[in-house]
Amino acid sequence: MDDLLRRVQGRDTRALARSLSLAEAGDSALLDALDARYAALPQPSRIGLTGPPGAGKSTLANALVRELRAGGHRVALVAVDPTSPFSGGALLGDRLRLFEHAMDDEVFVRSMASRGQFGGLAASTEDACDLLALAGFDPILVETVGVGQSEVDIARLADTTVVVLTPASGDSVQALKAGILEAADVLVINKADMEGAQRLKEDLKEALELRAPGKGWTPPIVESVATAGRGVSETLESIRSHRQFLVDNKWMDEVRRTRLEQRLFELAQQGLARSLKSGAAAAVLARARQSVQAGTKSPRQAVKGLIMELGL
Amino acid sequence: MDDLLRRVQGRDTRALARSLSLAEAGDSALLDALDARYAALPQPSRIGLTGPPGAGKSTLANALVRELRAGGHRVALVAVDPTSPFSGGALLGDRLRLFEHAMDDEVFVRSMASRGQFGGLAASTEDACDLLALAGFDPILVETVGVGQSEVDIARLADTTVVVLTPASGDSVQALKAGILEAADVLVINKADMEGAQRLKEDLKEALELRAPGKGWTPPIVESVATAGRGVSETLESIRSHRQFLVDNKWMDEVRRTRLEQRLFELAQQGLARSLKSGAAAAVLARARQSVQAGTKSPRQAVKGLIMELGL
Repeated sequence: MDDLLRRVQGRDTRALARSLSLAEAGDSALLDALDARYAALPQPSRIGLTGPPGAGKSTLANALVRELRAGGHRVALVAVDPTSPFSGGALLGDRLRLFEHAMDDEVFVRSMASRGQFGGLAASTEDACDLLALAGFDPILVETVGVGQSEVDIARLADTTVVVLTPASGDSVQALKAGILEAADVLVINKADMEGAQRLKEDLKEALELRAPGKGWTPPIVESVATAGRGVSETLESIRSHRQFLVDNKWMDEVRRTRLEQRLFELAQQGLARSLKSGAAAAVLARARQSVQAGTKSPRQAVKGLIMELGL
Repeated sequence: MDDLLRRVQGRDTRALARSLSLAEAGDSALLDALDARYAALPQPSRIGLTGPPGAGKSTLANALVRELRAGGHRVALVAVDPTSPFSGGALLGDRLRLFEHAMDDEVFVRSMASRGQFGGLAASTEDACDLLALAGFDPILVETVGVGQSEVDIARLADTTVVVLTPASGDSVQALKAGILEAADVLVINKADMEGAQRLKEDLKEALELRAPGKGWTPPIVESVATAGRGVSETLESIRSHRQFLVDNKWMDEVRRTRLEQRLFELAQQGLARSLKSGAAAAVLARARQSVQAGTKSPRQAVKGLIMELGL
C-alpha cells in the first residue's frame, strides 16, 4: 500500500484510480497508509458546487474544469451521486465527462456513489480529496446534486461553496429551504438567458439582504449560460475573490477547523454505529430491545437506559 | 400532556394535530406521556408508498385513501417530505390534499418535513404513527418520495411497502439501485396507459425472478392509472393479500421485530450523536480534535482512540 501511495504521489493516474476504489471500499490497509501521511498532505483549494437537479451544475463544473486547465492548473472533479435509488442519470453524465478528459493527465474526474453501511458519504469524499491532494491536484471541485440536506453538507466540505440555481426549474427563492443561502459563498444563476432570470436575481438580492450578518462577505450573484461558456470566467473570478477574502481575513483556518470538526463528528458517529451493530454496544442494545418486547419500556425509554449504561 | 393525549384517544382532531406538532418538535413532556402509553398502543396496519418523483405516488395515495374511506376505514396519511432544500413541491401537493379531506374526521393527512439536528426523520415518523394509532386510525399510509436511500428506509417502516414506478420517467429497471426491488411487497406501474408500460412490466418480472428467494412472497405487479382511478382497487387488493400472507405465515411478528430493531438503532444513534455534541462524549471528541491539530494523529486514528476511550 505504501508503494501504491508513492505512485499516487508520483502522479500515476492508474495508481490514483485504484487507491480511490480501495478507499471507497473501506480497505483498511490503504486507509492506514493514507492516515500515516495525513499531517504531510498538501492542502489544495476546494470548491464545492451544489444546486437542484437540472440546474446545469455538471455543465458548469465541466466548463470550470476546462478553464482551470487552460490556466495551467491540475484540476480534479469529484462528482458525488445523490444516491437516488431510482435513477442512473448522474453516472451517465460522469461517463461522458470522463471521455472528454480521458487523454489528459492533468485532469481527473471521479464519481462517488456508494454510501457505506453506516452512511458516511461525506467521510468518503474527504478521503477522496486527501488522495487527490496527495496526487498534487489543486484545485479540487466537489459537485453534488442537492436533493437532500446531506448532499448540501457535502458541498460544504469545500473552502468555497457555489450554489447553482436556474429560472428554468421554477424554484422560487421562497422555496429554498433555510440553510441554502447560508451555505452559498457564490451564487450562480445558470440558464440566465431564460425568462425569469432577472426576477430570480432580484429575489436573491433581497434574500441576501435579510440573511444573518456573516463575516463581512456577501455572495456575488453571477449570471451564466454554461452551455455557451457564458459566465464561466466570472464564476471563477468570484471563487478566487472569496478565497482571497478568506486568506486576507485569516478565516481559512476557521474554515478548516470547522471542516475537521465535521469530519471527526461523522467518523465518530460511524464508529459508534459500528459498535451498536457488532461491537461492545451491541449487547446493550439487545437488552434494550428485550425490555421493549417485555412491555416494560418504550423504545425511547430503553435507549435512554442504554445511553446511561454506556456512561454517555 | 396526559389530558392532550386523552383527547387524542378520544379522536379529537385538533388535539391530534397539536400532539403531532409537539412530537415533531421533540417536546419531551409530550414524548414522555406518549412513552407511558407505549405498551398499550393499538397496532394498526401500516402501508408504505415510495417511488421516484413524478411517479404519481401522491395521486395514488389519495385514491387509496378515498377507497379505504369508502370502505368504512378511518385512514391516516403521513407524507414525508424528501427534505430537498431546493423544492417546495411536496408541500403544495399536501395542502391540496388537506383541502380535499378537510371536512372529514375519519381521514387525517399530515406532512412531515423537519429533520432534527441528528437526523431522525424515521424516528419522528414512528412517533407520528404511534399518535395516529392512539387516535384510532387504521390503516396508516406512509408516503415518501424516494430520492435517497433514507426515504426508502422510511417506506420500510410499514408492514407492506408499495413501490410505484412509471414508464414516463424513463427509469429502466437496470437503473433501479439494489434494495428497491427487495423493499417492494407490491409493485405498481402507474401511468400504465403510456408507452413503455408493457416493457417495464416484462423487465420487472425478469428482475423479480432474479432476486434472492424470500419468504415465499412474490410481489404482484399492478398496472394503474391513478388519475383515472384505474388499478386502485387492485393495488388495495394486493396490499390485503400481502397482509394476509404475513398473518397466515406468522411473519407479522418478525416484521414488527425488525422494525423495532431499526427504531432502537436510530434512537441509539441519535442519543450517541447528542452525547458527542454536548454530553459526556463531547470532551473526548474535543481531545481527538486537538490530537489531529497537533499533527500527531489523522482524523481516523483520533476517532479510533475515542471509541477505545469510551470502551465501545
